[in-house]
Amino acid sequence: MISQLIEKIQKTKAPVCVGLDPMLSYIPDHIVKKALEEYGETLEGAAEAVWQFNREIIDHTFDLIPAVKPQIAMYEQFGLEGLAVYKRTVDYCREKGLIVIGDVKRGDIGSTSAAYAAGHLGRVQVGSSSLSGLGADFITVNPYLGTDGVKPFVDVCKKEDKGIFVLVKTSNPSSGEFQDRLIDGRPLYELVAEKVTEWGQDTMDGSYSNVGAVVGATYPEMSRILRKLMPNTYFLVPGYGAQGGTAEDLRHCFNDDGLGAVVNSSRGIIAAYRQEKYSGFGAQRFGEASRQAVIDMAEDINRVL
Amino acid sequence: MISQLIEKIQKTKAPVCVGLDPMLSYIPDHIVKKALEEYGETLEGAAEAVWQFNREIIDHTFDLIPAVKPQIAMYEQFGLEGLAVYKRTVDYCREKGLIVIGDVKRGDIGSTSAAYAAGHLGRVQVGSSSLSGLGADFITVNPYLGTDGVKPFVDVCKKEDKGIFVLVKTSNPSSGEFQDRLIDGRPLYELVAEKVTEWGQDTMDGSYSNVGAVVGATYPEMSRILRKLMPNTYFLVPGYGAQGGTAEDLRHCFNDDGLGAVVNSSRGIIAAYRQEKYSGFGAQRFGEASRQAVIDMAEDINRVL
Repeated sequence: MISQLIEKIQKTKAPVCVGLDPMLSYIPDHIVKKALEEYGETLEGAAEAVWQFNREIIDHTFDLIPAVKPQIAMYEQFGLEGLAVYKRTVDYCREKGLIVIGDVKRGDIGSTSAAYAAGHLGRVQVGSSSLSGLGADFITVNPYLGTDGVKPFVDVCKKEDKGIFVLVKTSNPSSGEFQDRLIDGRPLYELVAEKVTEWGQDTMDGSYSNVGAVVGATYPEMSRILRKLMPNTYFLVPGYGAQGGTAEDLRHCFNDDGLGAVVNSSRGIIAAYRQEKYSGFGAQRFGEASRQAVIDMAEDINRVL
Repeated sequence: MISQLIEKIQKTKAPVCVGLDPMLSYIPDHIVKKALEEYGETLEGAAEAVWQFNREIIDHTFDLIPAVKPQIAMYEQFGLEGLAVYKRTVDYCREKGLIVIGDVKRGDIGSTSAAYAAGHLGRVQVGSSSLSGLGADFITVNPYLGTDGVKPFVDVCKKEDKGIFVLVKTSNPSSGEFQDRLIDGRPLYELVAEKVTEWGQDTMDGSYSNVGAVVGATYPEMSRILRKLMPNTYFLVPGYGAQGGTAEDLRHCFNDDGLGAVVNSSRGIIAAYRQEKYSGFGAQRFGEASRQAVIDMAEDINRVL
């Protein structure tokens, strides 16, 4: 699966992932108004607004990018109706030829992780039928429970040619609270990084493993060390743009071959129309604003590679 | 919310939580067969089998227990159809007067955790309406991202009188891989425990805080230390029974007042009919087998308190 992502990155010349994290406050009024007029102030109405918003952004960006990353929490907040739009978004993106990274951050004891892995990446057995539930290409995984909580995801990666990105060093302000604490003189995130390499050893797909790592753009010194520690691990890099990470900060996430990382931007792309820089598009043309923001982001990153 | 859980524990004299984690392999053949005959070998068919199974178990145990803990992964594996049964189960249990602990182990950066908190515990704003998504009383939370990833859950606990249980020391075999590593001479799980106490300080609800901890029954020496370190924190204790934890192992999870812990059992209760001990009930009377298993479990635990 990672080789497919790399191929698309090379084709689009954009190591960019669009984060489909549609808070209602990001969605232009005319879309929300129309959805709520049709469905009322209901979860269904909110979900419809999210869907119309997503579709417009996907239609305006899919030819420029390799991947999208829907954040499932933004759908779960609207209950079952929101989750139906999560699946609809995943399916629509895959139809458009995009790699879908489900940002679900799941992780549990072995048997439970196996159920998550089946539902999000693999297949579940019902009688003699083998069925797909939510059907992403990659998902993000939380490592706090250790190897037996991650292994079931790796097993599905092998069986179904899928991939995961394990949280190593996250982009948020308090990520250091536990992740940076020193164990035998080395921060916890380095220990997790070593395990990620180990978990990925049997899933090599070209020069990189199908077990990747989440490494935040907001801590460039740490990403420099992690890049060296995990040469064959692809990085999913959140934190660019709205969270404060700059293109300069990203440089260390890449290997010398210009590969090794895919950089996510959510708000910076999907709510671009609200930025001064793109205000000329106006709320009606928010999809075009997102398209321009993708072009600018790819250029910004390619500048430092 | 924790005071409501305690009240129900005292009323039932059972510090017991039934884990509604219905793998298809646990469900008696006659239920699966009927559901698949009606809906085919589909996700809908599997979800219907899960629902019929859950309902029977709830109907046979709700008067004996304070709480249930549906593990959402077991529903997510069946996609949207499974998630609909998760919600149906949550709603049905609450109608029956049970406290519902959604075992979802969510956790992310602040804005994302806020969305999870709204969807699982609180309410989401749609226009002028404030709507409930999945509606549990408690959920489990993963602490790997630190304070800003947990705080939004705590905020919803305060606002809506709900509760969370944060993963501190999990019950699985490799939980020690990261959780037991020493930081300044103390294991990571103790540092997490201290943060849990800190996060819960403003959510006291009687003698205990609405921010609880997940502490596995399988590591009794560690639960002894954690019990002392977090005197006002309620423990959700997985790992009893099928995972190997005994009643003796649980003793340390409780305070001297006999409170302080609610012990979960999943397979040991819901698949009781498959045990030698309860085989007399047969697969047709699996609900009665579960009822007897609850009675036996409460007796087993009360014996050591």
